This record gives sequence, C-alpha cells and structure tokens, in this order.
Amino acid sequence: MAKKNPFIALLTDFGAADAYVGIMKGVIYSINPQARIIDVSHESAPQQIDQAAFLLWSAYKYFPAGTIFVCIVDPGVGSLRKIFCVQTSNYTFLVPDNGMLKFVLGETQVKGVYDVSKPKIFSHPVSATFHGRDIFAPLAARLSMGEKPSVFGRPAKASLNVELLVSVHPKRVMKYEGKVIHIDRFGNIVTNLLLPESRLPKFRCLLEKKTIEQQVLYYAENDSGDLIIVRGSSGLLEISIRNGSAATATRAKLGQRVTLELLSNEKDDHA
Amino acid sequence: MAKKNPFIALLTDFGAADAYVGIMKGVIYSINPQARIIDVSHESAPQQIDQAAFLLWSAYKYFPAGTIFVCIVDPGVGSLRKIFCVQTSNYTFLVPDNGMLKFVLGETQVKGVYDVSKPKIFSHPVSATFHGRDIFAPLAARLSMGEKPSVFGRPAKASLNVELLVSVHPKRVMKYEGKVIHIDRFGNIVTNLLLPESRLPKFRCLLEKKTIEQQVLYYAENDSGDLIIVRGSSGLLEISIRNGSAATATRAKLGQRVTLELLSNEKDDHA
Amino acid sequence: MAKKNPFIALLTDFGAADAYVGIMKGVIYSINPQARIIDVSHESAPQQIDQAAFLLWSAYKYFPAGTIFVCIVDPGVGSLRKIFCVQTSNYTFLVPDNGMLKFVLGETQVKGVYDVSKPKIFSHPVSATFHGRDIFAPLAARLSMGEKPSVFGRPAKASLNVELLVSVHPKRVMKYEGKVIHIDRFGNIVTNLLLPESRLPKFRCLLEKKTIEQQVLYYAENDSGDLIIVRGSSGLLEISIRNGSAATATRAKLGQRVTLELLSNEKDDHA
Repeated sequence: MAKKNPFIALLTDFGAADAYVGIMKGVIYSINPQARIIDVSHESAPQQIDQAAFLLWSAYKYFPAGTIFVCIVDPGVGSLRKIFCVQTSNYTFLVPDNGMLKFVLGETQVKGVYDVSKPKIFSHPVSATFHGRDIFAPLAARLSMGEKPSVFGRPAKASLNVELLVSVHPKRVMKYEGKVIHIDRFGNIVTNLLLPESRLPKFRCLLEKKTIEQQVLYYAENDSGDLIIVRGSSGLLEISIRNGSAATATRAKLGQRVTLELLSNEKDDHA
Repeated sequence: MAKKNPFIALLTDFGAADAYVGIMKGVIYSINPQARIIDVSHESAPQQIDQAAFLLWSAYKYFPAGTIFVCIVDPGVGSLRKIFCVQTSNYTFLVPDNGMLKFVLGETQVKGVYDVSKPKIFSHPVSATFHGRDIFAPLAARLSMGEKPSVFGRPAKASLNVELLVSVHPKRVMKYEGKVIHIDRFGNIVTNLLLPESRLPKFRCLLEKKTIEQQVLYYAENDSGDLIIVRGSSGLLEISIRNGSAATATRAKLGQRVTLELLSNEKDDHA
Repeated sequence: MAKKNPFIALLTDFGAADAYVGIMKGVIYSINPQARIIDVSHESAPQQIDQAAFLLWSAYKYFPAGTIFVCIVDPGVGSLRKIFCVQTSNYTFLVPDNGMLKFVLGETQVKGVYDVSKPKIFSHPVSATFHGRDIFAPLAARLSMGEKPSVFGRPAKASLNVELLVSVHPKRVMKYEGKVIHIDRFGNIVTNLLLPESRLPKFRCLLEKKTIEQQVLYYAENDSGDLIIVRGSSGLLEISIRNGSAATATRAKLGQRVTLELLSNEKDDHA
C-alpha cells in the first residue's frame, strides 16, 4: 500500500458561482476526513487547455511532495476521452487525456500511467456531466488514503501529450516563435518563451502589430507607460505595463503569436 | 451533549471582494480551532433565494454526515426575519427564514427546528447588518463543538417553506411548467424540472420564444451549435449549447418560465 | 522560541484567475504541513492601499490570537520598498512598507518591527516579481512553526504609516471630511467616518453632488429607493440603497470625498 498523503490540490475551470468545487470537497472529506485540500485555481478559462496547462506547470513544483493534483478543464466530459492517473517521482496527477499535463511532462519523468476512466469499484452511479464529483473526487480521496492507482485502473499504453516551453538561448538562436498562454489578473501577458536569468541583449518582441524593445527586472522599474517585457516569476517572458493592463492595451488573446528577435550585439556595438 | 462534528459548510452571497467570508472563518476558528470549514459557494447572486436554494440542494447530500451548513443569502438581515436551526437525520442547517432550505425540505425529513434569532448567551454585541459574523458563525462553531441547538433557542412553531422540484414522468403527464433556477459559469441554464434517468421521448421545450427539441447525454455529444437539453448532474433539465453559453444565446434570466411538452410517441411512431 | 501558531491569514490583490494564491499555500504547507490557512480576501483592488488597509482593519480582530497575517497589495514588488514583520499583542503582520497596516496601527500598539526584506537564510533564489511565493510564504510558514522574527531580520528603525479613522462625535464637532475607502459586493459605499453607536442627530451627508439625509439601522428598513446611510458592521458610515447598488447610483469611486455635516438639534427642535 502506498504512503498516505493528505494533500489534494484542485485545478479546475469550475469558477466560484456554482457549487461544483464545494461538492467535490464534500465528496473528498466524506471519504477521507483527514484530507487537506488546496485550491490551485478554479478560474482557469473554460476549455482553454494551454492556460490550464500553464497554471498547473507554474504551480505544481511548490506543493508538498506526495500531493495529488486533480485537474479538470474538461470540455470532453462524458465522451470517450480517457481519465489518466499519472505518477511522477513526487506527485500524482488525475487528468483528462487532453493535454493539461503537457508542460509538466516537458520537464519531469513519468513513473506510471493508469487509465482510470471507469473505476469499476465505485458503487454510486456516474453522471455523464460531472466526473469531478463522481470519478475524480472519490479517486483522489482514496489515493490520499494510501490506495494504489492499480486498484482503480490498468496501466495505460497511450502516449501522453508533451509540449516543451520555448527556451531562449541568446548565444545560439536569434529568433523565437511563441504564443500567449495566460493573461493574469493584472493584465500581464504570459508567453511560452522561457527566458534566461540574465537580461536579454538588444531585442525586438512582436505581439500582433505592437513592438516591445525594453526589458525591466520588476514591474515598478518602468514609469513610462510603454509596453515592457519582464522575466516573470516562472521564468517566462511576460509583456507588461507599469500600473496598467498590457492585455487591455494590446487586446491580446490566448493563443496569439509572439515573436522574439534577438539583435546582433556585435553589429550594434560597432556600427 | 450532541456529537462533535468538525465540518462547517458555508453558502453565502458575500462574494470574494470583501472580507466578510474571511471574518466569519476567523470567528469560527477563534471559538473552535478544530473546526474544518468548506466553502460551498459565496457567489450566489445577491438576494436570489431560488438560486441559493438550488445550490444548497445540489450540494448538501455530498457532504460528510454531521456537517453544519451556514446558509446566508439574507436581504432581510437586521429586520424581524427569524434565524432557524433545522436538523435532519444527517445534517444541521443555520438559515434565515426565507426559503433557502425549500428544495432540501422537499426531499428530507425534519427532526427539529429551533428559533435561534436571538441567542442570548453571546456576550458580544450583535450588529444590525452582519449576522454572519455575530450570530451564524459563533453558533456554527459552538454546535460543531457538540453543543445542542436547544442551548441557543427554543423549538420553533413556524411552518417552514417547502418547494418541490417538478418531477417529469413521461408515462403520466404530458406538459410541465418550470422555471430557471440557476445559470452556471458555462452558461448552462438550470431549471427546476427533474428528469427521469432514461432519455425523454419526443418533446418540445420552450424558453421564452426559443424551442429546443433535442436531448443529449453529455455536452460534447452535440456539435451543431443548436440549443440542446441535458439531464444535468443533479438530475435537472438543463438548456445548453456545446462550447458556448446558452444563457447568452437566449438571454435567459433567473425565474424565467420554462415549459416542457412531451409529444405522443404512438402518434409519431405510426404517422 | 516563540509559541507555535498554526493560523496564517492571507490578504492579497492576487485574484482567483491565477495560481498565485495556490502557489503560496503550496509553499507554506511544504514547510509547515500543520499550518492552517485562512483566506481574508484576494480580490482587494489591485494596488489600492486604502481599500486593502480597510479590509485588514475590518477583519484582523476576529481572528484567533496568534494568527500571522500575510498582506500583499504590493505595486512596489522588486523595488527597494521594504518588507516588515510587525508584532502586536495578539498578532503578527507581514506587510510591504506601503501603508496597508495604517488603520490597524491607529488602534493597536506595536510590540516590535523587523525589517525582513532580505531574509538571508533562505536557500532558494528570490524572484523580482513574486515575493509572495519567495519571501512572504516561507517567512509565514517558519514563524508559524515558532521561529522568531529576529531570525529573519533586524529591528527596523523606520516609522510606520499610521492613519486614524475619523471619529464622529455629535456633541463636539459639527462637520467631518472623509473619503470612500471600499465598495462592497452589494454596492454599499464604505467611508472612513467612524459613527457612534447611537443614531446621528439631523445631518446632511454629501458625496459629490448627492445629498443623503436619512439614516437606517439595517438595509431592509428602508424601501424608498433613496440613498441612505447605515452604520456598517465595523462602525463605519456606509452609503446604501435598499435592494440596489449605491455605488452604481452615485458612480462613487475609491478615494472620493465624503462630507458629513451635523445640523444643530436645538435650532431644529425649537424653530
């Protein structure tokens, strides 16, 4: 029997206006009153897999080892899409087979994958529209009590969706194509371009028809009201405006293309 | 002395922009540090009793036995409206006397009702505008420590508001009048029509000037962009659009009338 | 070594759409699995110090003694602004040095202030944009385990920002200048004018070009649709409309001036 791990983290697009999240917690505590539930976010945009995958990737490594992540952005609920239980060295993920785990899997090794789409041992009926309540929550609760995934499903053969973030190496490649994967509450536009810790050399960043040419270390550094780029707290290139919303200023949307061109230092220095 | 039950579930219309919910939790933990608080939802639309009653009904049965529900959608705060402590076999509910419990009471037996509007034993002053902090939270905390409702109030004579959901029986009645009782985050329109588990025979569902004639098992089943009906996770008739908001498409509002007409099978089959 | 205090309360402007709050909780539980985290609010308006200071002041006194408050409305993150650990008789506050604590400090005595801007003992790198994750959360977790603030920083010399709420004394002063410091979910406009428990004598309250002349004890008392004032649950003057949004009706904004003129009783009584 696996080790008990009381922490269950929830990431969904269920929002706060419904009782869906509360119901899942009720189910979990009914099965394992010792569980400890942490909300990652429930405001992931409905059915936006890239964003959900980003939120999960940005968060999971900060959780206690052993945490069971329940990840539900699931437009395919009720259809033939599968539900996987994916184990890594430190964590367990319950996810629909739709790519929510793709950025996590780009940087961590998988130890086991189980198809838990139809965990036969549950006695209650499974609805066609709320697997969060009827499959994910009871599964998470029982895993948190130390039961093994093999009790609930078979090892899955399917290859999992993996997507690498785009690593920017100023000394190697001069042009990068990325995309908008998240817009945060402050209107900062988060991209899938992973920046080095050191400041970029001279560059041009293009978002639709906007050009950004200035990088700052933190938001309060710039007062001009110009668009700037920042290396965000997860290392990703963010487009930002001091005390304003870059998303509003640029009308950026999830999925939009972002291009980063590094300009030759030598040429500039000696021109 | 009653059994201790650490779980306290909160359902309010207090929203997230204020500290009201946080303050209630502070009060509860100050009295009972062992309490375990679960949020059902705090985004129930202000002062919409039908919706709050639906959210509570859809959720309560999934919570651990013994859970104490604190339900505050309470436009009458400070007035002469009463606060009741209602006990059923499995749960305790603290509610203003305004109908929030009406759908729950349509399906479960009441074991006891206490009028706890003015629990004299509290030493702190009671504000006229925040009974959540000054009455509900301390009451819930003390009940969770095993104190009995009779300590805080007298058995109430008042008859409680009960409302039955409208059960659809295709073999018995051919026409049903219902109403919109909730619109969820995805724009699904939830009605008070309780569907049977088996698929409906041929039907016509009317919402204002819109007619819906197709039923699906789950949201992803239909790709047409037409309005469809789904038997939601609580068994209620929901009006939906695949990958869109049915509420936006129909401009549906809480309280709006919904009519379901079942069409004779025989006639259709042999016409 | 200080006493262990499991309760950590979070007040931020991080919102719910991002994983920022979830990440902070992950960090805290990773360090102290016994911690118990309470959300005060995460929807404080971005970068509105007055509002955050009000929310904190309205809430803190209802939390268990020993609670550690983590307060992050922090437009200056990454700049040279300091982070303070402020101790009072009952509580510990981790705050940027930007005034979030000003209303609390107007009514409670400070026992100690430490500059914890650069807690050297942490081994992980500190990002320039997410001190919540990299400084506040680990600090709170370790304080909750009984470590002393002096482990993480030096006593600070800086004088802290203090702002008194404006106490209304009908027998002493006849005219008061206040401001809007919060607008709640129901559209109630909260000011920094602290009312006495007894009803005001005849008065005139001015908000921009609107005049309010009626006071009620609770929201449901008035049915007219007129603007009214209420002594809110924290004792502050609130401008309200029964079953409507006073903020929408008046287009009130945070920071707007509010004037309260008490009119001579004698004159009125005998005129």
